[in-house]
Amino acid sequence: MTTPEARETTEAMVARVRESLDRQGMMATLGVELVAVERGRVELALRHDERFTQQHGFMHAGAVAAVLDSACGYAAYSVMPPEASVLTVTYTVNLLAPAAGLRFALIGSVVRAGRTLVVCRGEAFADHADRPFAAMQATMTALYDRPGISG
Amino acid sequence: MTTPEARETTEAMVARVRESLDRQGMMATLGVELVAVERGRVELALRHDERFTQQHGFMHAGAVAAVLDSACGYAAYSVMPPEASVLTVTYTVNLLAPAAGLRFALIGSVVRAGRTLVVCRGEAFADHADRPFAAMQATMTALYDRPGISG
Amino acid sequence: MTTPEARETTEAMVARVRESLDRQGMMATLGVELVAVERGRVELALRHDERFTQQHGFMHAGAVAAVLDSACGYAAYSVMPPEASVLTVTYTVNLLAPAAGLRFALIGSVVRAGRTLVVCRGEAFADHADRPFAAMQATMTALYDRPGISG
Amino acid sequence: MTTPEARETTEAMVARVRESLDRQGMMATLGVELVAVERGRVELALRHDERFTQQHGFMHAGAVAAVLDSACGYAAYSVMPPEASVLTVTYTVNLLAPAAGLRFALIGSVVRAGRTLVVCRGEAFADHADRPFAAMQATMTALYDRPGISG
Repeated sequence: MTTPEARETTEAMVARVRESLDRQGMMATLGVELVAVERGRVELALRHDERFTQQHGFMHAGAVAAVLDSACGYAAYSVMPPEASVLTVTYTVNLLAPAAGLRFALIGSVVRAGRTLVVCRGEAFADHADRPFAAMQATMTALYDRPGISG
Repeated sequence: MTTPEARETTEAMVARVRESLDRQGMMATLGVELVAVERGRVELALRHDERFTQQHGFMHAGAVAAVLDSACGYAAYSVMPPEASVLTVTYTVNLLAPAAGLRFALIGSVVRAGRTLVVCRGEAFADHADRPFAAMQATMTALYDRPGISG
Repeated sequence: MTTPEARETTEAMVARVRESLDRQGMMATLGVELVAVERGRVELALRHDERFTQQHGFMHAGAVAAVLDSACGYAAYSVMPPEASVLTVTYTVNLLAPAAGLRFALIGSVVRAGRTLVVCRGEAFADHADRPFAAMQATMTALYDRPGISG
Repeated sequence: MTTPEARETTEAMVARVRESLDRQGMMATLGVELVAVERGRVELALRHDERFTQQHGFMHAGAVAAVLDSACGYAAYSVMPPEASVLTVTYTVNLLAPAAGLRFALIGSVVRAGRTLVVCRGEAFADHADRPFAAMQATMTALYDRPGISG
């Protein structure tokens, strides 16, 4: 995973992330927006939606975790070579407080990228809070040459 | 968390789990069915749905994890006293293979229940597979006397 | 990771596990014994030792986790081809109760083995308890052809 | 967990952390030093030691994780009321690279402290590296009034 910068402009990388995200039915269904992409960091936004609540009326941890997982996955993807695909190996998510708010910012960033495995951290913030209400540690893998798998 | 059996019939416990699950907007939106409930074990079912896919066309890990989280949460809830509410503290999920299939079984079971924390494991199976394609280890907490929180 | 059985006898696999374990200074220092090995399952034993306690006098979670990590790592190694080396990618450990006892059994088993990643679960039992006091979910990787790395 | 500052000077908090750490047989055996303590952040140091290696001669992941666990645990303890004890509920550790080096810095910091649960992150650095070789996400709990448990 050496110097992807040498092989791809930032514009091409951002387009690659956006194109892959646009193919995630789940992110479209959740109404997720791509707020910002740089190499090693992706920010997504999610709005409160009654279709995705848990039994107490807050956003379901699973919805929050799904978007954090995508934020981490695309942060990893942003530092992978253009021909790689990205898959989640495993993640741990802590729910630090209920997902109470109208709009949520979900930020994934790369901690360290190895040859095939990339470890990321994610944080979720509600409205204008400065402390996260959820934290993720995720392990992503780069895949090459798998038929039917791209992006 | 001693002898909840002494305080509540199995029928009442099952009704309590079902009533709480029915209030999860996210589970309704995902089309999740409650297949089986016993003390310490809950099985849910999910069907393939293009609204919840990732970029390669498989079900999104986030959708699978959300349902596994609910299966584990309700397994924990099934051994809690009737007046408790359940919240997820943290979980780790491993995606062992793509979520490829038409119908998925998601099973949560209690490993050990402490006074407030309950640790569960979850496994997700596709169609008639005998090996899981996803595995979860989850930590749930019992809440008491929180205004606005029940179930 | 297809049919390692075809390529190596059980005796050779057990010898390979034992030889690698014997090179772990940490396991020798902790006084860990290899109790049982079969393909996909390894059991280790640890004794209470004041050199490895935490501040309340129980065995330190880190000592328990280290041995569970080795039990999981060797369970994974037991299903890998003989030329592979094994490394831990990540694990999650839950401490369900204090590590109170004289002798601890630490058991690792393979949940599912992929081409390079192997996911395992570990459980730790004190004395004659039938419920674990610690539970692990671990992701191991097979390495090939890395200079200076074997076993 | 409101305003522990109001109830205890920084000096008293640091003394409380040091006193508890000094009772961990495992940290003494590993030769761990307390480098720095502030509210919500603890730095420990570990030296390479052949007694605690894995099969390839690097420090065992379990030794690194044990010290990261203590760094996180004491970061959590530093924001708890003086009468609380601290226990690890669960942690996830990623081994991003082998623990190759002579001296390791292990830093735990609080992400968010709730009433009883405190979530922390830990990072381990070798020698003068600026990127971590291990990352932890940990959940700690405060205990009150448990006979035989203090610190």
